[in-house]
Amino acid sequence: MPKLRVHNFPMSLDGFAAGPDQSVDNPLGVGGMRLHDWVFLTKAGRAMMGEEDGSGEEGIDSDFIARADDNVGATLMGRNMFGPIRGDWGDESWKGWWGPNPPYHHDTFVLTHHRRDSIEMEGGTTFHFVTDGLEAGLERAFAAANGKDVRLGGGVATVRAALRSGLIDELHVPVVPVFLGAGESLFDGMADAMMAYDCEQVVASPRVAHTRFVKR
Amino acid sequence: MPKLRVHNFPMSLDGFAAGPDQSVDNPLGVGGMRLHDWVFLTKAGRAMMGEEDGSGEEGIDSDFIARADDNVGATLMGRNMFGPIRGDWGDESWKGWWGPNPPYHHDTFVLTHHRRDSIEMEGGTTFHFVTDGLEAGLERAFAAANGKDVRLGGGVATVRAALRSGLIDELHVPVVPVFLGAGESLFDGMADAMMAYDCEQVVASPRVAHTRFVKR
Repeated sequence: MPKLRVHNFPMSLDGFAAGPDQSVDNPLGVGGMRLHDWVFLTKAGRAMMGEEDGSGEEGIDSDFIARADDNVGATLMGRNMFGPIRGDWGDESWKGWWGPNPPYHHDTFVLTHHRRDSIEMEGGTTFHFVTDGLEAGLERAFAAANGKDVRLGGGVATVRAALRSGLIDELHVPVVPVFLGAGESLFDGMADAMMAYDCEQVVASPRVAHTRFVKR
Repeated sequence: MPKLRVHNFPMSLDGFAAGPDQSVDNPLGVGGMRLHDWVFLTKAGRAMMGEEDGSGEEGIDSDFIARADDNVGATLMGRNMFGPIRGDWGDESWKGWWGPNPPYHHDTFVLTHHRRDSIEMEGGTTFHFVTDGLEAGLERAFAAANGKDVRLGGGVATVRAALRSGLIDELHVPVVPVFLGAGESLFDGMADAMMAYDCEQVVASPRVAHTRFVKR
């Protein structure tokens, strides 16, 4: 059975997976980029961002980032992960945070309450907009993945909703030793939902402690 | 300079360092013992609990537990770590959670608002009761440690107060991949206080991710 997987969804030691007040200048909320600093030091992370010189560190962190793409045929994400715009799409000039060639390279479904036509990007990514909810989005993503797994990209609210519904099969949370002080909590109030999951792996690089959960 | 050190102060992935509703039956609060399960699997943890057969796992977890006693000459703790009694000491029959031979083996200072005479236990532990606050307790503990470091044992409120005052030199927090759902949060609201600390180490066993912070 194809799986719904969450990878590289980092959390601060004070429990936040995104900073507060997301905006064009702060796609991950204020301070949220600190959760991702380690990604940009890795070989796989730099390659994902379009760096072609093969630079960056190999090792545990890089392996986790690379593994996130293994056997993934489609991506699903909440609207805030796609952009800072709330409400109507306006002039439709917003095409995601990632520039002309987003790091997905497959059909990518965005949950939203507002209709919009699909956008074909460079590199194989096509953004589709799903207006009838998480489970409908999943259905479309699994159909597009054509037997492969679906990656749930985020954001925090979407991951929490999917965990609460027991829809996520695998969850990888890198715990980053920083303190954001405010933002979107990943696990607050989630203890009951997490009873359906076993911790399969705890492993650390000198920068990040990776935890991986799988549905029982 | 002798240091104030916190060791093996575990936190759940949802941020709690103790469960709610501490009582005689739940010294670490309801569910709080789950934060310490890994300790009882280690060689050093079992030795600390009086197990004399040398059983238990060696490795990272055991090393962290053993290291907590290195060069420590006295211990300081909040009242809740000493017992579940609130208010007056009553008949003074309560002598801590640990039985006749507590795992301290040196002068151990308990912060309380209620006077009580010192209690000499087996194995070198003497409990002293300090009624004039955290800094006074520290002063007495450092005097008793006689040039060695002082260990701050807990509980959560005492560790948070000492972090806020910048009194802690070294803080070791094992992050345990369990979810308590409720209890005493270690780092909620502590981001400003933690700006005074650098993360010096992240390392994991298959069970626990150890993080270690030192004051800048």
